[in-house]
Amino acid sequence: MLASKKNFYTIKFLGDSLSILDQTVLPNKIIYQKLKNYQDVFKAIRQLKVRGAPLIGVAAAYGVALESTKRVLNQRKHLYQAAVKLGEARPTAVNLRRSITRMIKIINNPKISNKKLSDLLINEAKKILKEEQENSYQIGKIGSRLINNNMTIMTICNTGRLAAPGIGTALGVIYTAHRQGKNIKVYVLETRPLLQGARLTTFELEKLKIPYTLITDNMMGTVMHEVDIVLAGADRIALNGDTANKIGTFTLAITANYFNVPFYIVAPSSSFDLTKRTGKEITIEERNKDEVRYIKNQLITLKHANVYNPAFDITPSKLITGIITEKGILKPPLVKSIKKIKNNV
Amino acid sequence: MLASKKNFYTIKFLGDSLSILDQTVLPNKIIYQKLKNYQDVFKAIRQLKVRGAPLIGVAAAYGVALESTKRVLNQRKHLYQAAVKLGEARPTAVNLRRSITRMIKIINNPKISNKKLSDLLINEAKKILKEEQENSYQIGKIGSRLINNNMTIMTICNTGRLAAPGIGTALGVIYTAHRQGKNIKVYVLETRPLLQGARLTTFELEKLKIPYTLITDNMMGTVMHEVDIVLAGADRIALNGDTANKIGTFTLAITANYFNVPFYIVAPSSSFDLTKRTGKEITIEERNKDEVRYIKNQLITLKHANVYNPAFDITPSKLITGIITEKGILKPPLVKSIKKIKNNV
Repeated sequence: MLASKKNFYTIKFLGDSLSILDQTVLPNKIIYQKLKNYQDVFKAIRQLKVRGAPLIGVAAAYGVALESTKRVLNQRKHLYQAAVKLGEARPTAVNLRRSITRMIKIINNPKISNKKLSDLLINEAKKILKEEQENSYQIGKIGSRLINNNMTIMTICNTGRLAAPGIGTALGVIYTAHRQGKNIKVYVLETRPLLQGARLTTFELEKLKIPYTLITDNMMGTVMHEVDIVLAGADRIALNGDTANKIGTFTLAITANYFNVPFYIVAPSSSFDLTKRTGKEITIEERNKDEVRYIKNQLITLKHANVYNPAFDITPSKLITGIITEKGILKPPLVKSIKKIKNNV
Repeated sequence: MLASKKNFYTIKFLGDSLSILDQTVLPNKIIYQKLKNYQDVFKAIRQLKVRGAPLIGVAAAYGVALESTKRVLNQRKHLYQAAVKLGEARPTAVNLRRSITRMIKIINNPKISNKKLSDLLINEAKKILKEEQENSYQIGKIGSRLINNNMTIMTICNTGRLAAPGIGTALGVIYTAHRQGKNIKVYVLETRPLLQGARLTTFELEKLKIPYTLITDNMMGTVMHEVDIVLAGADRIALNGDTANKIGTFTLAITANYFNVPFYIVAPSSSFDLTKRTGKEITIEERNKDEVRYIKNQLITLKHANVYNPAFDITPSKLITGIITEKGILKPPLVKSIKKIKNNV
């Protein structure tokens, strides 16, 4: 997104379609797909062609905007249903729901004429995009204060320009520190089952010329003694600071804690869900068991092996050193810090 | 190996060759390969066609025995060199070195006539096999005392009949508890990079009809609250109890520790190396980076992604609740318990 100078963008609204970079085939194939209607957008989000909590919020908003350009009977009812459907594409990331709520507010506003509706929905999607971009730059600026020269950073999944408009979240902090001329190294967890670390984060770091070492997830403990700080993203943060993020984040936090390595969550305030008091109230998406059984169409176990495949886990507040947001770095007690910025969320 | 009633064996000496089950293509292909000389055995061990610390000790001994059946000039010198070479096939598991030391002792014994040499080497290999088999049954019997009805067990890598003659080590304990009629469940870590958990442990548990759930390694923290005991194997155990085992074992121990779940190492006393005071002195094998970059010939990252690929890590003694051996369960302070059985090792 906005990444033409870096040779790729993740999502671009073309008026009658939404062009997206298919993230499932990265890093060795660069394929753009044109989404023609909201059903296409729904599928692309569900299949993780577009992924990353902030980015799917933007993609879903554009899905509604795109649909509004079509001539249909009962347009408002149709758009409302499309928006609701898009909001259900994935359950865990709150950014998606938040975007959809904003779009629905416009759809349901009787003061807006039918004529103006589409323009306003397109504008709102653009606005969400711009806000997330601005958030990412602020997050990078604020978070990079924690990164000193010669630091080694560990990160999980992909939280860069492929995951969030602008420069990303956790990876955006790394990017900003690098641009500031700081000499840094990154340990990238491959992040099974879908290997977003191995496929996407290495791809971004390679492009940015930031030194990295890819490791399997189970090596986190083996190399943690070399790590100065851990940075992870978030799909939803509860009022008490409990954080839903990519599966493996909780184990990573436990491991960082054992080594007294600071563990930070990096996320825009759009990732906070103050209606959830603790992480226990957050719905965890369980995905198809074949995501574990197969790697890129290669069966790696018995065909009918019994498998558990939660896409996320909950890292308890007590393991989190701080949360880096566009509004500043929240420190424990997180419930207090989060309440403080509550009115702004 | 003793597994005819279970429809498979891992290794069988046929007089003029060594038949092995190629473990790299399990579970979806059952392929036996005939090894004709010690070089074949060396390759099979290095390529992990034969793997598991106790089993490679046996395979290497048979490699020497097999070579002794051939007519060559300077037979003793040749066999000595073959044995040394086999001992270098993999650096971390001590069972390999221990077996080879026993074979070399016979080769170098001037009291043994050339005529009898081959028979004695074959006998010694058989003896090592029988000892490891007997060890595994003892370990199963002793370790199963820790397993109560309705327990959930987590394990890493493969430590069953595919890894150790007889019934295995950690998986042997699980097998024995199951045979005793205890109702148990097993969480199997897939064990990247080479997926021994996903490929081999599920294969064994499925055959044994023991209920299991396969998870990716980074889910260990996510489900650890359901786990009653963690059982892991060992490739080498230092005098102070520090244990080298499959990569990921250290992270697993940290995670178990966080949840106060007992973490046991299960290994025959042939896995102890009392010449190493601590784990720091144990050589860790670093394997080809493509093992991380590729999964079954499928590239999963950038072709030249920078990768770190240690095959093992060291779990510090302080994270180990106990070590289950054929001589009993060693409890902390491990350095004392290990010294106690020292004379028998």
